[in-house]
Amino acid sequence: MNRYWSPLVARLSPYVPGEQPADLNLVKLNTNENPYGPSPRVVEAVRAELGDRLRLYPNPESDALRDAIARLHGLTREHVFVGNGSDEVLAHAFQGLLKQSLPLLFPDVTYSFYPVYCDLYEIAYQTVPLRESFELDPADYQRENGGIVFANPNAPTGRALPLPQVERMVLASERVVLVDEAYVDFGGASAIPLIAKHDNLLVVQTFSKSRSLAGMRIGFALGQPHLIEALTRVKNSFNSYPIDRLALAAGVAAIDDREWFEDTRRRVIESRNTLSAGLARQGFEVLPSATNFLFARHPAHTGAALASALRARGVLVRHFNKPRIDSYLRITVGRPDQCAALLQALEHIL
Amino acid sequence: MNRYWSPLVARLSPYVPGEQPADLNLVKLNTNENPYGPSPRVVEAVRAELGDRLRLYPNPESDALRDAIARLHGLTREHVFVGNGSDEVLAHAFQGLLKQSLPLLFPDVTYSFYPVYCDLYEIAYQTVPLRESFELDPADYQRENGGIVFANPNAPTGRALPLPQVERMVLASERVVLVDEAYVDFGGASAIPLIAKHDNLLVVQTFSKSRSLAGMRIGFALGQPHLIEALTRVKNSFNSYPIDRLALAAGVAAIDDREWFEDTRRRVIESRNTLSAGLARQGFEVLPSATNFLFARHPAHTGAALASALRARGVLVRHFNKPRIDSYLRITVGRPDQCAALLQALEHIL
Repeated sequence: MNRYWSPLVARLSPYVPGEQPADLNLVKLNTNENPYGPSPRVVEAVRAELGDRLRLYPNPESDALRDAIARLHGLTREHVFVGNGSDEVLAHAFQGLLKQSLPLLFPDVTYSFYPVYCDLYEIAYQTVPLRESFELDPADYQRENGGIVFANPNAPTGRALPLPQVERMVLASERVVLVDEAYVDFGGASAIPLIAKHDNLLVVQTFSKSRSLAGMRIGFALGQPHLIEALTRVKNSFNSYPIDRLALAAGVAAIDDREWFEDTRRRVIESRNTLSAGLARQGFEVLPSATNFLFARHPAHTGAALASALRARGVLVRHFNKPRIDSYLRITVGRPDQCAALLQALEHIL
Repeated sequence: MNRYWSPLVARLSPYVPGEQPADLNLVKLNTNENPYGPSPRVVEAVRAELGDRLRLYPNPESDALRDAIARLHGLTREHVFVGNGSDEVLAHAFQGLLKQSLPLLFPDVTYSFYPVYCDLYEIAYQTVPLRESFELDPADYQRENGGIVFANPNAPTGRALPLPQVERMVLASERVVLVDEAYVDFGGASAIPLIAKHDNLLVVQTFSKSRSLAGMRIGFALGQPHLIEALTRVKNSFNSYPIDRLALAAGVAAIDDREWFEDTRRRVIESRNTLSAGLARQGFEVLPSATNFLFARHPAHTGAALASALRARGVLVRHFNKPRIDSYLRITVGRPDQCAALLQALEHIL
């Protein structure tokens, strides 16, 4: 270990995000971005904010954006926390809410950032195996715990848990239960309606997927005000102004253009169904998906070989070299032409 | 304490940033923003990046911006870390480099975020009193320590430490010495030329002051690659993409417009000298400043009374209700008309 590093640093195994290639000609189906750009109103709103005002700090509590999100969900500003992408929101929640003396529970197959946060903040945790076909069973969480975190729909599997079972998960802890809903707008049932009833429920969402703003880094958490206050205290001990002026303007405009949101997510869902059928025709086993990606494997080819053969043909998909899932590909649902390009490339490879 | 909070949260006393009023008619001299807007090239660069591409994640390592900063200082990309404002960069440095078993040292009067980071990451620290008139003496740091952090020029005093004494500070620790140079472009001597010689020196700067981009949240650290690697490991265990696409574009353009930078900082320095003389004529004791603000007190009036009387006249300045400095005002250097408005308001009050 380097003598200047904190002892912690040598222990970290940082999260590795999907490739962000400079070459824009690649068919990029590897990081679950929306294939459709943001609302034209977002572009207008950013343009209106551009200029001399950039010399001034943004509103530190992102009030306008919190108000817009609150209105959308019938809540108040005090129920909303916003951060620099849902990854930052999750990090603050791990440090400020999920770090307890009993171990945190989460599925063995899920967003691979969760164990990284645990290392960063020295949080004890146990992983709970998903059932066959990657289904989550709330019965498996009926044990002593210091909190629970799970993604719904789950990543990278794409499977969704119905709301009554989500509520069973919320009841399975005397601490905080965090539901990570990054993909919920593509077909999951959000736990937001349960917030009024459960003072230990925190729901996290993002603008990176269904709002087409991965490039602007906006995420948020919803929960009862006492949970939001914990996040705010951590945030204000870390960085007073995580959301810049242009991101604030973009976020408010993205929420306001309801029609754009509905139209683009409908198109993604349609493409998903077409792509899923196409993959099945080629012999893939495709898990049911409530997200903007598909999790699929081919009985005759390894995931690694397929991912690399696709890369050679200019198509990026994600492959995780991990137990239980290394035979699978995670394929982002693209525009119809991108999905067709993927199927055509696979046709050649298979 | 709330039963859902991590034990840590109840202990935090978050940093309180200066007021960001919605009313743009106020004469805002309270948060050390640049009175001049960013380069027109920044606006152009952001406009060029706006559009469909916002749906895609940014480059996670901010390579283009790190290259631009490296070129400016005759270093390489591996010597540069960028973050969401220098506050985020500082936070990662506290967690990844300054958390050691021996206590961290910093001045008693300095940026008040330092003890907040120590609380957040449970870092042992000792404050070292500045000498009379708020001068830092490197002799006071010749003791066992787990690292040193100091601002140069210091905030909120505005005083600068000459480079030979900065080097004495770097030699005073066997761990990392972090020099926080948020204000250095207004008259301080940067420690950047010492980086090649000292493997324990980390220099942190920001785009919020001399680059007129407080609204865009960009800060950076410079040091030998092994120190940068520690920050990168922490960042990639926290949030993969802290700098959004528009901030990246803005940052590169701000670095590239050297002429705008030189012209605006020269104007700020001229206004500082005029304002300092004006305050002295009104009976203020004004500390020498190498920054874009003045630290001043009046023998006949308390700092709190003056700040509140100025507020009533539409002029915001910063007052810290803290030992040793509660008689002072910290006044941002504004445009000539803003400085004149401040002096006129004071004329009435005094």
